[in-house]
Order: sequence, then structure tokens, then C-alpha cells
Amino acid sequence: MSTDSLVEEALAGSPQALARLISLVEDGDPEGQAVLRALHPRAGRADLIGVTGPPGVGKSTLVDAWTASLRRGGKTVGIVAVDPSSPFTGGALLGDRVRMQDHSTDPGVFIRSMATRGHLGGLAPATADVAKVLDAAGYDVIFIETVGTGQAEVDVVGVGDTVVIVLVPGLGDAVQAMKAGIMEIGEAFVVNKADHGDADRTVAEITMLLHLNPDRGDWRPPVVKTVATSAQGTDDALAAIEAHRRFLVANGLLERRRRDRRRAEILRVVESKARDRALDLIRRGGRLDELAERVYRGELDPSTAADELLTESAQSPQSAQSPPSDANRQS
Amino acid sequence: MSTDSLVEEALAGSPQALARLISLVEDGDPEGQAVLRALHPRAGRADLIGVTGPPGVGKSTLVDAWTASLRRGGKTVGIVAVDPSSPFTGGALLGDRVRMQDHSTDPGVFIRSMATRGHLGGLAPATADVAKVLDAAGYDVIFIETVGTGQAEVDVVGVGDTVVIVLVPGLGDAVQAMKAGIMEIGEAFVVNKADHGDADRTVAEITMLLHLNPDRGDWRPPVVKTVATSAQGTDDALAAIEAHRRFLVANGLLERRRRDRRRAEILRVVESKARDRALDLIRRGGRLDELAERVYRGELDPSTAADELLTESAQSPQSAQSPPSDANRQS
Repeated sequence: MSTDSLVEEALAGSPQALARLISLVEDGDPEGQAVLRALHPRAGRADLIGVTGPPGVGKSTLVDAWTASLRRGGKTVGIVAVDPSSPFTGGALLGDRVRMQDHSTDPGVFIRSMATRGHLGGLAPATADVAKVLDAAGYDVIFIETVGTGQAEVDVVGVGDTVVIVLVPGLGDAVQAMKAGIMEIGEAFVVNKADHGDADRTVAEITMLLHLNPDRGDWRPPVVKTVATSAQGTDDALAAIEAHRRFLVANGLLERRRRDRRRAEILRVVESKARDRALDLIRRGGRLDELAERVYRGELDPSTAADELLTESAQSPQSAQSPPSDANRQS
Repeated sequence: MSTDSLVEEALAGSPQALARLISLVEDGDPEGQAVLRALHPRAGRADLIGVTGPPGVGKSTLVDAWTASLRRGGKTVGIVAVDPSSPFTGGALLGDRVRMQDHSTDPGVFIRSMATRGHLGGLAPATADVAKVLDAAGYDVIFIETVGTGQAEVDVVGVGDTVVIVLVPGLGDAVQAMKAGIMEIGEAFVVNKADHGDADRTVAEITMLLHLNPDRGDWRPPVVKTVATSAQGTDDALAAIEAHRRFLVANGLLERRRRDRRRAEILRVVESKARDRALDLIRRGGRLDELAERVYRGELDPSTAADELLTESAQSPQSAQSPPSDANRQS
């Protein structure tokens, strides 16, 4: 089936077509680029919500509770589940989750697990692209859920308009989260499993840590207690997320953020294309092996070798950007 | 002080000069590039050993025991300690470690903690550069020690000729390590804290997991039990690491690895320079804002905008690689 008809079918509501579009986009191949070009004008309407936190805090259960609540309110929901911590297994475990069953008969919910392999431009850009497809397909709210607390996770949830950090009662987690830098990016905090341990103390602790960061502007991140398994407090947490979105809109920040994100998106594509173009020219140029050998022998350093290759590739007749000319050779 | 005299002093054995050289290299500025150029011909003699594993398994204590043992054998030791899991705090905690005191009076040991910020080309390349400086400065054995089990850690320890994975007794860790993909890269395994829990079972478990991976070639990774705090088994573990190195040398693999690494190093510099050049031209070109606005409004997609910018920058009179000419404009 052609990309055009796939796009048409996905927009008409076919989950199979949508799944295939996402695969094309995820793989980063030229067809995926065509899909993104076709869908771009339709994107930008969904609420994007990033959800992260340490493993085992109940993020999936929370997102499920929020999804159920949003569905009752008539909203459609997309979920992108990303596991950056498993470079080799590719986050396959996420695909097995029970909840895939729960919502499988509801056409208003679309769940996608993302493997970590093969995202040449990085996991966060690939996540942003997948979220964009769901956005263009008309899902009202899109959750970007990621397991863990490293830089990769920070980047991934940064795709959201609002970033939610989920923790559980206990001193360690909040401090760990702070160490990993995720306290800084949280715009709403959830203390899940609040029926276990001293949840009030954890809330107090998070609130204190938030006060240590002076760069937050006018928004005070709410800290909400939940027991996601019995949906206790989950509506309050969702209300807190929605309040953050209203705050962004009221202060013109949502627009500014999205504008900045588009700008960053263009630069990311520029970087990736400039890099691919240079590598492609150099691989075709055939001098890499010789220079690598000289670098290995210590006769040349990598930086000088790279300069030689770049200068040569810019003068190459294969360079679409700069056909050869006498002027080039003199530069 | 000039870079040249810093290099001279570092090679003459000044730890202060060496520390300053490493800072220059770590920051990735042009002076750092000059340092790497100057030192490149001297590098390539050290044994590089990558050490990783989950937090709290005793990696530092192990590396300390190995360092003490190597020192008794008359070898000098460099230690690069990297903490990729703390994007914001920058791994500062590693800098505080007690062992900095232990070896501070021994000129045969140099310890460097690496922060995670500001490494534009990535943490693993920066680690490789710092290891190269220590190598050129004449340290016989260089440990690259990193906390955690994500993709960043896999990349960082991949700088080593031999990769050592440290675990402790208990089923969870080995399975976690496998999920995180580090079992695949381990060439020697240490089960530390073997006086606690069922160490033999963990050894059996690791051995079994290793059998699941058929792509290992002729090398069978040894699995060694240690109690690093009392130096039990640590010499056996070191012997296992040295056996791996002899295996590499005997099969011509060390040379092949290092050749491949130089090649990858050149391509990395090419990528980074091509990217920087494109971004620089585009920022100076002044059309980014206009195109970003059109992308934000949905009139243009990021990929097409990037193509426009790249085509324009290639034709720009500021491009050192491709001065303007009529031929260029027709392309």
C-alpha cells in the first residue's frame, strides 16, 4: 500500500494503518520522512504529557487510571511507552504489558511501545515523531511514559508540554530523582502507593527540594498523593496536570515552548543531514582507510585526518551541495 | 602557561600539568584539540580496562585493590571515574570518594572523576580523550570505571580493551544486567561481595546467561568471585583480565580493535565538525527564525525547512568549504 493511502486510512481511523505509519516513522527511513511531511500540518492540537520516575513506582497503572478518566470525559488517548534503559533488549518487556489487553477493544485508545534500537537521531526525536503522528491522527491527549531517571529519560519526557514525575513514599527516591536531574524538569509530582510508608513525609521532602531550585518561574509544581491501583487521588493528579496546561496557555508559554521546539526540531534535522551527507561523501571518497591507518600508526591525529576528509569531500564532484570549481580548489 | 609547556611538564611527570591538560581536553575547546594532537603519537601503549556494573556492587573498592596490586608489581595506574547517570549534578559525588586520599601521595596513580556536563560530542568520546591523555602521559594501566547499566555506561566502558562487569550475589542483578545489555559486552565477570548470599549460584547464573549468547567468538568470559574489601580473589580477577588481553594480542584482535577505534574516532570528529559547520552557517544566515515560524504554523515541515537551510548555507559566501560560484547556484 502506498504511503498516501496509509495516511488516508490512518486519518480515517484505522489503527492498523496508524501502526504501520508509526513503524515507518520510527525506522527513520525516507518513507517515514514523507509521512511526517504529510502529517505535519495536522499536528499541534494534542496535549502532550511526559511521565517518568524510577522503575516500579506504578507509572503504567497511573497512566491507565488517567486514560480511563479521560475516556469517560469523551477524550481519546494515545500512549507512547519508551524504555531507554534497555539498549539491547529494546524495551520489548513493555510490549507485553497486561494493559494492552484492557484497552485493545477501545478505538479511542492507542498504545505504542517503543524499542530503543535503530533511532539514529536519538530516542527523544524518534519519540517526538511518534507523538506527532498520534497528534495528527487526532488523539486528544498523548502520554509519553518512560521508565527510569537518566539523561535519556529526561530528554524523552521533555517532548511533553507538561512533565510529571512519579515517586513513591521513601526518602531515597526523591533524592535519587534529584541526583538524576529529574526534579528540575518536573512540573507536577505524584507520590503513588501513598497507602504504603510515610507519604506525607515524601510530599514534604519533594516540596522542600523544589524550593531549592530558584529557576522555576511563576509555576509551583503541585505534589499529589495517589493510590493508582484503586484510582484514589488520580483525578486530583490529572487536574493538577491540566492546571499546568492552563497556566502555560494563559502565560503564552505553550506557544513559546512549541515554537522553540519546532526550531530545535529543524536544527536537529539539519545536524543529522549535514552529518549523513559528510559521512556519505567520505565513505564514497575512499581515503578513510588510508588516513585511519596513519592515525593508528600515530603519524596523524584524528582531528587533522577529519579536516583532510572534510576538505576533500567538499571538493568532491559527488557533493550535491558544492560542485567542483577552480574557486573551490583554491580555498 | 602555554599549551606546549603544559604538555612538556605533564610528560615530565607533573600531576598538576596533567590535570590541567585533562580539563582542556574535557571541555572540548580548541586548546584541548591542540593537546590531543600533540599527545596522539605517544598514546596506544596503555592497557585500557573498562569496569561497570550496578551501583553499590563495590567497583571502586575492586579498582582500588587492583591498583594496589599493580603498584606492587611496579606498574603505574590511571583511573577515570565516570557517572553518566547524573546529568545535572555532573557526577560530583564521585569526586568526594575516600580513595582520592589513599593514593594522593602516590605519584604512580592518577585519579580523575568526570562530570557529565559539557561534553558536546558525547560522554564516551570525552572519556576516550581523557584516557588517551593518561595513556600518552605514560600510565601503564588505565581503568575506566562507570556507575550503572544504561546505554551511556555501555558506550563509556566500550573505550576499554577489556570490559569487566561487576555484580553481587543475587538473581536480580544478573538479569538486570542482561536486560540492560551489559552481559553482551562483558569479557570478564566479577561476583563481588562473595561472602554474602549465594555467590556460587550467581556465578552459575552468569555462566548460563553467557551461554545464551552465541556471538562471543573463541573467548569464554571468566567469572571470578571476590571480596574486594579484604582483597580476596582480586588477584585472580586481575589475572583473568590480563588473560583476556593476552588472548586479544595472540589473535591479532587488540590491533584490529584499536584500528577500528581510530577509524570510528575520525568519523566521530567528521560528524561533529560537519554538524557544527552547518549549524554555524545557518545561525549566521538568519533565515532560521522565519522558517521556524512557518514550521510552527504548519505551513512547512521540519525536514523541508532543514533542506532549504542546508542548500542556502552551502551557497553562502561564508562557507569556507564552498565559496560561491555560478556553478554552485545552479546545483
